[in-house]
Amino acid sequence: MFHLFFALAAVIVAGRLLGIVFRWIGQPPVIAEVIAGILLGPSLLGAISPAAQQYLLPDSIKPGLEIIAQLGVILYMFVVGLELDLRVMQQRGTAILTTAIASIVVPFALGCALALPMYSAHSASTVPLFNFALFFGAALSITAFPVLARILKDRSMSRSPLGVMALTCAAMNDAAAWCLLAIVVGVAQAEVGWAFAVAGMTLLFIALMFFAVRPIITWLLARLGDEPPPQGVLALIFLALLVSCLATELIGIHAIFGAFLLGAVFPHKSRIAIDLCHKLEDLVTVLLLPAFFAFTGMQTKIGLINGWENWLWCGAIIAVATAGKFGGTFAAARLTGLSWRDSAGLGTLMNTRGLMELIVLNIGLERKIISPTVFAMMVVMAIVTTMATTPILQLLGLKWEENGHDKAAYRNGV
Amino acid sequence: MFHLFFALAAVIVAGRLLGIVFRWIGQPPVIAEVIAGILLGPSLLGAISPAAQQYLLPDSIKPGLEIIAQLGVILYMFVVGLELDLRVMQQRGTAILTTAIASIVVPFALGCALALPMYSAHSASTVPLFNFALFFGAALSITAFPVLARILKDRSMSRSPLGVMALTCAAMNDAAAWCLLAIVVGVAQAEVGWAFAVAGMTLLFIALMFFAVRPIITWLLARLGDEPPPQGVLALIFLALLVSCLATELIGIHAIFGAFLLGAVFPHKSRIAIDLCHKLEDLVTVLLLPAFFAFTGMQTKIGLINGWENWLWCGAIIAVATAGKFGGTFAAARLTGLSWRDSAGLGTLMNTRGLMELIVLNIGLERKIISPTVFAMMVVMAIVTTMATTPILQLLGLKWEENGHDKAAYRNGV
Repeated sequence: MFHLFFALAAVIVAGRLLGIVFRWIGQPPVIAEVIAGILLGPSLLGAISPAAQQYLLPDSIKPGLEIIAQLGVILYMFVVGLELDLRVMQQRGTAILTTAIASIVVPFALGCALALPMYSAHSASTVPLFNFALFFGAALSITAFPVLARILKDRSMSRSPLGVMALTCAAMNDAAAWCLLAIVVGVAQAEVGWAFAVAGMTLLFIALMFFAVRPIITWLLARLGDEPPPQGVLALIFLALLVSCLATELIGIHAIFGAFLLGAVFPHKSRIAIDLCHKLEDLVTVLLLPAFFAFTGMQTKIGLINGWENWLWCGAIIAVATAGKFGGTFAAARLTGLSWRDSAGLGTLMNTRGLMELIVLNIGLERKIISPTVFAMMVVMAIVTTMATTPILQLLGLKWEENGHDKAAYRNGV
Repeated sequence: MFHLFFALAAVIVAGRLLGIVFRWIGQPPVIAEVIAGILLGPSLLGAISPAAQQYLLPDSIKPGLEIIAQLGVILYMFVVGLELDLRVMQQRGTAILTTAIASIVVPFALGCALALPMYSAHSASTVPLFNFALFFGAALSITAFPVLARILKDRSMSRSPLGVMALTCAAMNDAAAWCLLAIVVGVAQAEVGWAFAVAGMTLLFIALMFFAVRPIITWLLARLGDEPPPQGVLALIFLALLVSCLATELIGIHAIFGAFLLGAVFPHKSRIAIDLCHKLEDLVTVLLLPAFFAFTGMQTKIGLINGWENWLWCGAIIAVATAGKFGGTFAAARLTGLSWRDSAGLGTLMNTRGLMELIVLNIGLERKIISPTVFAMMVVMAIVTTMATTPILQLLGLKWEENGHDKAAYRNGV
């Protein structure tokens, strides 16, 4: 326990300190925390002083760190689901729908294509090409809705037309990409004959959540009214969360899909959803997710990307990821009539991957779909694409609205 | 992870179901959760069907369960500290002070005395008599402030003179007993020569928290004003919590003392203390503490108390615990002028041990101060003394005040 707490404290301190620097150069704090975890891991501290790294993050704390990280990620994905406004999908026009579909399909296709030449050199030994390619494609089609929302807020763009469009696209992207990933992870894990069963059960589970669980929750919450929820109701919700996680694990996909889906089927604006977000968000972000950053940092060995050939592959991943996400979004937005500048801005925003990408990558590594080397390359890609967002928005001249309220929110780091 | 979630879900369901029954017979829900954990462990389910118990709570999940339980207990003790109103100690008269002191000193002395004949038969092999007796005495002087507060609330007695007196006594008892326990655990662990150093460092740490950390926190919170705390401040608080836990672990006492003390030195009525309680309480009670109940249930083997001799010892522990806590409080309250009925009521309330006692016992078992058999006996004692409180209050005719608001709070289980 001592070392676990020590590691958590170290990652929180490093992440917050780096966060101050990053805020100053206009980068979202979550990237500072990701990088802090990597710097304290084998990639930097371990390379400089293996003894210091072994003291700070000894291998013995890995299981404990993983459990807190898992708990944190599950609660985090539940909150992301809760904050997702599914009604926008019904309200928005075909322009946004087209853009959102393009922002998944294009990177997925390009990712699958890139996986073909990478497979022989960089797949984990036991995984078939088909599964490797599917996972690779799905991993590239992730957009980090929370980081994107945060960047928009930091730039006071949340309520601008472009901001609303980006949030809507990202919400659709999130819902679709995680369902896609659930199927891909399930299929990638299963025997060939079993793959269809897994895909079928996943779709059935998603349908069940939307068409059976959602009406039940809506009905129950309507009965509860606007009172603060009693503890018995909270116990029921956490129980539903655990059961949803267990169901997804039984199907063979990952517990976080269950957590995300349960959050997504909650009525977005209900008193209890707002209350839960309010309660969980800070605790999860401040105390539990640092365990995830530390764990990911321990897993990430940038040193594995050695030699110019590996760095070329890493560059190719960044290029393909950006071409797919930015390019797909940009082209679709232009086709549906957006200006050059707004299309480029939308593409840049959708190219944000942040924490969500790391969650996906950890699943791939844990399930032995990708090798530690590819994991490291993809982590670099996630950091680069996320960090590129703010400077490019700046270059495009997509400025802040001068708005006293949002400026205050920016300063307070809300 | 699958089994961990499954076990958590099972304990939550069992605890809540039993809680409904217990609420019906007027018992606090926390005792239902404690008993649910024990029933799912080796004591009942394991005796009936070892296979079912091994599926529900396999040994492989113990480390994971322990980490979530530890996290839950640390956050819980932090909240208990936050809710502790230390100012009452300065305001109240000598009557309450006398009663509070008696409610610690008498059970401590009687506990130490009982430890002498128990030592040869029931101590863990390596622990010296002195340490065993100290721990035994300290363990008997615990009062469960949260359960006591809950019982008072359930009976709408929180604002009656007796209720206020009981809460004040219990708050003083809590603060003093945990400091005493910290020293005892530290001393019990240390080599003979080192024991004084541990006791000294513990006192120094307590003094530091009250005379250095408390003013700093008060000053910082005053600067913050009544605004909702930004995330940076929350990060600082959780960091302080981790550092305080690390400091106590370094001294050789337990991390929960650090968590409790940090909570206790927070200004009780500050916006941030109320906000933190509100945020942490539900999540900790509903999601994390069930892991503690499951873990404690796995550790508790009632079957170890076999034969009439062991049950006699168990009865002796219950008798001595009650004689010390109830008797000491009752005598002191009578001497300072309370009525027979109120003195008996106060003694009964102070005899509530609940969850707090289990936290202490787990420390004793983990540090190998007490044997698994004594652990089981003490768990039985904690359950019996806690469950006796409500019926005895009923017998004494200490009725509810007919108060619409509190009745509503009772029904809602707030």
